[in-house]
Amino acid sequence: MLDLIIKGGVVVTATDMFPCDVGVKDGKIVEMGMNLDMEAKEVVDATGKLVLPGALDVHTHLAMPFGGTISADSYLSGTRAAACGGVTTIFDYPVQRKGGTIMDLVNSKKAILEKEACVDWASHCIITDFNDGQILDEMEEAVKEGITSYKCFMVYKKAGMMVDDGMFATLLLRAKELGALVNVHAENSDMIDFFEAKFKKEGNLSPWYHYLARQEFVEAEADRRALHWCKHLDAPLYIVHMADKEGLEACIEGKKEGVPIYVETCPQYLEFTCDVYKREDGRNFVCSPPIKGEESRQALWEAIKKNQIDVVATDHCPFQSYEKDWGIDDFTKIPNGCAGVENMYPYMLDAANSGKITFSQAVALCSTNPARIFGCDKKGGVRVGNDADIVIYDRDKDFTISVNNMHSDYDHTIWEGKKLHGYPVKTFLRGQLVYDNGDFVGKPGMGKFVKRVPRS
Amino acid sequence: MLDLIIKGGVVVTATDMFPCDVGVKDGKIVEMGMNLDMEAKEVVDATGKLVLPGALDVHTHLAMPFGGTISADSYLSGTRAAACGGVTTIFDYPVQRKGGTIMDLVNSKKAILEKEACVDWASHCIITDFNDGQILDEMEEAVKEGITSYKCFMVYKKAGMMVDDGMFATLLLRAKELGALVNVHAENSDMIDFFEAKFKKEGNLSPWYHYLARQEFVEAEADRRALHWCKHLDAPLYIVHMADKEGLEACIEGKKEGVPIYVETCPQYLEFTCDVYKREDGRNFVCSPPIKGEESRQALWEAIKKNQIDVVATDHCPFQSYEKDWGIDDFTKIPNGCAGVENMYPYMLDAANSGKITFSQAVALCSTNPARIFGCDKKGGVRVGNDADIVIYDRDKDFTISVNNMHSDYDHTIWEGKKLHGYPVKTFLRGQLVYDNGDFVGKPGMGKFVKRVPRS
Amino acid sequence: MLDLIIKGGVVVTATDMFPCDVGVKDGKIVEMGMNLDMEAKEVVDATGKLVLPGALDVHTHLAMPFGGTISADSYLSGTRAAACGGVTTIFDYPVQRKGGTIMDLVNSKKAILEKEACVDWASHCIITDFNDGQILDEMEEAVKEGITSYKCFMVYKKAGMMVDDGMFATLLLRAKELGALVNVHAENSDMIDFFEAKFKKEGNLSPWYHYLARQEFVEAEADRRALHWCKHLDAPLYIVHMADKEGLEACIEGKKEGVPIYVETCPQYLEFTCDVYKREDGRNFVCSPPIKGEESRQALWEAIKKNQIDVVATDHCPFQSYEKDWGIDDFTKIPNGCAGVENMYPYMLDAANSGKITFSQAVALCSTNPARIFGCDKKGGVRVGNDADIVIYDRDKDFTISVNNMHSDYDHTIWEGKKLHGYPVKTFLRGQLVYDNGDFVGKPGMGKFVKRVPRS
Amino acid sequence: MLDLIIKGGVVVTATDMFPCDVGVKDGKIVEMGMNLDMEAKEVVDATGKLVLPGALDVHTHLAMPFGGTISADSYLSGTRAAACGGVTTIFDYPVQRKGGTIMDLVNSKKAILEKEACVDWASHCIITDFNDGQILDEMEEAVKEGITSYKCFMVYKKAGMMVDDGMFATLLLRAKELGALVNVHAENSDMIDFFEAKFKKEGNLSPWYHYLARQEFVEAEADRRALHWCKHLDAPLYIVHMADKEGLEACIEGKKEGVPIYVETCPQYLEFTCDVYKREDGRNFVCSPPIKGEESRQALWEAIKKNQIDVVATDHCPFQSYEKDWGIDDFTKIPNGCAGVENMYPYMLDAANSGKITFSQAVALCSTNPARIFGCDKKGGVRVGNDADIVIYDRDKDFTISVNNMHSDYDHTIWEGKKLHGYPVKTFLRGQLVYDNGDFVGKPGMGKFVKRVPRS
Repeated sequence: MLDLIIKGGVVVTATDMFPCDVGVKDGKIVEMGMNLDMEAKEVVDATGKLVLPGALDVHTHLAMPFGGTISADSYLSGTRAAACGGVTTIFDYPVQRKGGTIMDLVNSKKAILEKEACVDWASHCIITDFNDGQILDEMEEAVKEGITSYKCFMVYKKAGMMVDDGMFATLLLRAKELGALVNVHAENSDMIDFFEAKFKKEGNLSPWYHYLARQEFVEAEADRRALHWCKHLDAPLYIVHMADKEGLEACIEGKKEGVPIYVETCPQYLEFTCDVYKREDGRNFVCSPPIKGEESRQALWEAIKKNQIDVVATDHCPFQSYEKDWGIDDFTKIPNGCAGVENMYPYMLDAANSGKITFSQAVALCSTNPARIFGCDKKGGVRVGNDADIVIYDRDKDFTISVNNMHSDYDHTIWEGKKLHGYPVKTFLRGQLVYDNGDFVGKPGMGKFVKRVPRS
Repeated sequence: MLDLIIKGGVVVTATDMFPCDVGVKDGKIVEMGMNLDMEAKEVVDATGKLVLPGALDVHTHLAMPFGGTISADSYLSGTRAAACGGVTTIFDYPVQRKGGTIMDLVNSKKAILEKEACVDWASHCIITDFNDGQILDEMEEAVKEGITSYKCFMVYKKAGMMVDDGMFATLLLRAKELGALVNVHAENSDMIDFFEAKFKKEGNLSPWYHYLARQEFVEAEADRRALHWCKHLDAPLYIVHMADKEGLEACIEGKKEGVPIYVETCPQYLEFTCDVYKREDGRNFVCSPPIKGEESRQALWEAIKKNQIDVVATDHCPFQSYEKDWGIDDFTKIPNGCAGVENMYPYMLDAANSGKITFSQAVALCSTNPARIFGCDKKGGVRVGNDADIVIYDRDKDFTISVNNMHSDYDHTIWEGKKLHGYPVKTFLRGQLVYDNGDFVGKPGMGKFVKRVPRS
Repeated sequence: MLDLIIKGGVVVTATDMFPCDVGVKDGKIVEMGMNLDMEAKEVVDATGKLVLPGALDVHTHLAMPFGGTISADSYLSGTRAAACGGVTTIFDYPVQRKGGTIMDLVNSKKAILEKEACVDWASHCIITDFNDGQILDEMEEAVKEGITSYKCFMVYKKAGMMVDDGMFATLLLRAKELGALVNVHAENSDMIDFFEAKFKKEGNLSPWYHYLARQEFVEAEADRRALHWCKHLDAPLYIVHMADKEGLEACIEGKKEGVPIYVETCPQYLEFTCDVYKREDGRNFVCSPPIKGEESRQALWEAIKKNQIDVVATDHCPFQSYEKDWGIDDFTKIPNGCAGVENMYPYMLDAANSGKITFSQAVALCSTNPARIFGCDKKGGVRVGNDADIVIYDRDKDFTISVNNMHSDYDHTIWEGKKLHGYPVKTFLRGQLVYDNGDFVGKPGMGKFVKRVPRS
Repeated sequence: MLDLIIKGGVVVTATDMFPCDVGVKDGKIVEMGMNLDMEAKEVVDATGKLVLPGALDVHTHLAMPFGGTISADSYLSGTRAAACGGVTTIFDYPVQRKGGTIMDLVNSKKAILEKEACVDWASHCIITDFNDGQILDEMEEAVKEGITSYKCFMVYKKAGMMVDDGMFATLLLRAKELGALVNVHAENSDMIDFFEAKFKKEGNLSPWYHYLARQEFVEAEADRRALHWCKHLDAPLYIVHMADKEGLEACIEGKKEGVPIYVETCPQYLEFTCDVYKREDGRNFVCSPPIKGEESRQALWEAIKKNQIDVVATDHCPFQSYEKDWGIDDFTKIPNGCAGVENMYPYMLDAANSGKITFSQAVALCSTNPARIFGCDKKGGVRVGNDADIVIYDRDKDFTISVNNMHSDYDHTIWEGKKLHGYPVKTFLRGQLVYDNGDFVGKPGMGKFVKRVPRS
């Protein structure tokens, strides 16, 4: 006997849409068919609805220390919001501290997540120090433990978190050897410092100067450099939160040539332009890299339509209003980051619902591609044998985003007032209902660690 | 009760591989699951084997008049060979004669195919004359009848079959309007005539001069021009049998920019180089466009690996040895064309089996992509709801191609002696077994016309 | 004793500007120095003025039959106007008629020009028919006679003047062999016919449809195709009157790669946009190729600034108003062509005077480059040993172009009202004054045939 | 009365060759003519010879401290060698020391050069420290004193000589403001350190590893980054000693787009490949950037032929054999640099004499272009008004380079045994003979400081 049958819906895969019933047992999809009529403990009617794989948000910063505070969403509230936004797996980005080991770091987070996580979770690990090479040695074990991706910063030199190009190369080669994947935050650190010093001297400290200090070409240079190492060391690389046209186009050209480069962007770069930094509440939009000009926004959408971007993720890292206010007179004091984990999937599906992209593209970007790229071999698709991470989506439901109907702990959102046509109505995590038409119905601790497989 | 269950195999889709049983009823795939245990009239054990969708060979010339004779495979023998090579749908290329209508042409072929076809079949239609615009009017009805693709020649000017650029544009715009797709044979007719005249004058008439008369840049110019109209008229276009690097790269650049261009290549361009024309039996390899140099061969493989080519098809058009011999002293007298319909899928799957590409890529190129591009909405994938066109593939079976183990009517093959590792062992056409481990077990007339849907 | 010293001026070469006196004897520049104090029959004071080489207008159609009439400038009036615009050498484009030979054609023009020419002159020859190859044989002798450039049309198919791609290739290879240069008018003939037929059917016959029938991509295709043959046959080619951005950029890319391609544009493409065809007097601007959109205009200027265009010439081919009026209701009946020979050099020098380009660039484009490209080894520069073709230019003189102050025979000009800052005040042809501050002071018959040297 | 007439020769300019006599007075070229017959103190017969402008070697390191020693040529011996190689102006690269000012540095060199210089000389200045911005302020005065170019290193981070990207940007913007030009040594410092550490650890210390530590892509990244800042800050930049294909091609693409980038290469990169580092005397070829592979060598020549490289200079920086031997077991201990100042012009002219390039191209690369780019407004061409820096070149003279016939102080040369066809026979420095058929005939102290003009 099956545990669950979802009947009458239209299954959406990364390549296809077709009417199909879905049968679940022990948390897995075990049966798909035209008219499943076997017994089941529960039957959910999805007539007229879409049956989608749960999303993977591979870029979140929960409970993360930054700029003298901690990001506003805890592991609990952040994963609760995720579930309510159709995200069934989140990836955390814990930061290695000087002298620390990878597994200590991951395990310390694990301890919290095992209690708090409302959806499944995986950890990338941000490397800031090789500890005289010890970290490189340790990576072998960590990969075996399912930690198969490592991030590094080309920024934050003054904060001691930047890797220089030599460390970057070392990491790329080591990861390649182990079947792991390097993620990189690509902006040029020196150039940002140059502009910030210049603007400070000139007394230009409004959020608009946050943008100017990290304008298009400042990001593009780092994108190009990262791509260059990726290409010439022939080592796979994943660029997080791509926000500028020039860097994007360089990567697309690289892809055309067969360079093993992956590109992620975020909904905020698709929806807004740098003009937000001229608004009175501009500081609320301050994140790094900053949102760029209209030309970049359009280039990102064009690339998405042409399947030239691999992943949409959120860089979810909200702060409370009073924290954002610290930088009201000085952009360098604004904690960087915005909310997104609950908005990403509905936002991309709305784009599909309006015909801008296809539903298969939305599914590929938010679920199938990230699952594959990051080695989650039982996630990312409504397919026999996969985890039953399923979202039921109502194409006719209207929804207006507001801080009041979100399930996080922050007190404002850059998405306030955004109208969506179509919205998720149910989320299943490995066959268990965790979100039902507006309400979180799961429990903290339901989420499990996703042990990932290395690249072959 | 199901008609058939294929148990224990690994299903390959265009994007995925996973263990899964497949249940068939009334010619359709109705059930897929981890352990299908319902009743069925027949259960086929596929343990240790791959379960693939049947291929679509979208480029064949059966019983086609050419150069004073008729291509060596009849509709019967050609489709029989197809079934034995894992091809469950072939596309015919009937040629419109001056004054003739589309539906008359298609219907005359239908009359034969209904009796002879051993696999399903569709018709593109080659347009050579607009009959004062009548053909353009008629296309509307023809599209409704499921004839949704039309081919034109940029060559064969002297034979009166070429469309000039104005007609080409007319066809592109009309097809776009109707949701149909134009296919084009892209070589520069004048330049071929120029070289042929030059070589004749010089007394250079060996098959090598067939290649030189249509060398890389002669094809590339037409590719570029076709791409140019496609781009600027914003009308979808499908270039058949791409064989040269420069044209290919231009199209790949076009794809990057979002031009609606599709590219097909053929196994002969992937396996051989123009050096074959220096062989004593060079005439047997004479086809148009001719096989190009090693640089083009490698570029085609690279593009396949990077998913930059959409379709592999055969341009199947064999002639008997005595017919090929007509051109022993004069390449212009050699009937153009080679065999391939039975070899394509095994050849591409062998490339997958050896790790050159993935099995999903082979499936995409030979089945899923052509089904989608040409509007066969129930073909091209092992998926709930599709026709049960299924190939069971044994990765361990060795096979050496020989004219003796082929199922066509020709008396030689360019593939003679080619060793393959892995080979199809069963082919099902809409659930019916038509090929079983070396033998054709279907019947002429089993094949049905595939009514295609227009592009949206 | 010298015949003439021009004292106190600043000499402008294609690469330099420097104060320098110029001494002339027997029509040649024999001396250049800081303070020439030898005796001379005449001393001209050029203090505060620029001393430039006379321009070569390598693209004129004088007394040319077209569309049932003859272009409005005779050899006499056209060359008189040239002299007054600082042009000391014009190139004529006589059209070979079916069955005619090159030398008969050139000699028939020579007979007239020897009487009428007010400046030196050379002949390209337009080839429309190979006369069974006779023309190709004759080219050898013609090149020895100094006819080292041959034009062909990719347009005018219906008029029987187009060369197909095979003839084009033949011409390119033959010219290369002889050190001659092929010039080509690049537009796609079939596509123009397609659009014209379409517009006629739709009743769209205003001059605006002249533009639409030959819009950017129609020209661009032919540019690309011409470039393709040039590149792959490795035979030098000169594209006349380039007017569109896409074709231009393709050629610039070709130049970067070392393809032997030369590009000419004309002042009308630099000054106007296709919007003129919406004007009431739009027909007066009808020429082929038509003037394109603002994007193309800007691209042409950018290319000029970056030295990516080789030559500016005029395509001078004026018609009288009553002739232009023939097409008032039907753009296909408007004789194609506009005036320009007297305006080109002042127009480009005005651009230099305003700082848009340098004076050296203006000199290179209008004099030095065309002299070199077309083998006029004693023209094109104020340099010891060259013909004393010299223009004295007053940077402070203001001038407004009007049909009243031109020296041609036409009754209107597209340049009417154009204000220039800076204007030629004297033109010397081989040391003889032919233009003096507004007046033609030479005599018909002063011009000599320029025997050109082949390329090495 | 003239001081000197050079009669009967063929003058070569950057664009032209023509028979012309040259008259000199007070160190200047005052007269050029077809048959100068005025009186002169001295008449030199150049019949059958070429009359060239003296070369400018804009990249030399004389008496430069490096790696615990000093480069082998003093200002005296280096400039003596220059004169004997047809170089009439050298540019020195003094290095700013921490806390030092520009003018102190230049003046300290001036004091020596005024006594020792055998040819004219100018100073770039290498900036390593902004002294809290003081240097940026001082640049204004230095530019007025004729110091209009400043070099910075993207390498030598560990030695404290690297500028980071922020300093680089600062320098570019400041130089642009003042009409000065930044020169940059482009290699990626971190990546070199990464490879050196890796090779040391692995015990790979032969000269071949000098190449591998700085292989093609290590240089290319820095070229691309430099180009990126140049483009986006729209500030002119000159990349010294370009040695790799990828960086070169990026710059050529930049030029096509109008980026204000200049490229210099050196004869050693044109003649040798990295294979020299496998030779027993490989250490003698150790310079930075190292000589690259054959593909880069060919790309450099191709670019030279297409006028895509602006300048050829030498990076002259020889060391004695015993110093080179310090690194016999460890490439990191080899002083970097090779001889070249006496070989450059003969080498490039030999390439012209053999038809690889034209004489005008050789003149442009070694004389006219560097003179213009670096603001030497009276140098760089045989032209009325310029300094009479003239080389008489015998196209028929054979010469084999050997340390024995050079005029430097080093004890070996990488050019040993190189055969040249054609060689300079006389060098005039502002009209005075300094080199005569094998012998230096000038005097130390004859050379003068070249006060350069800023860019406009």
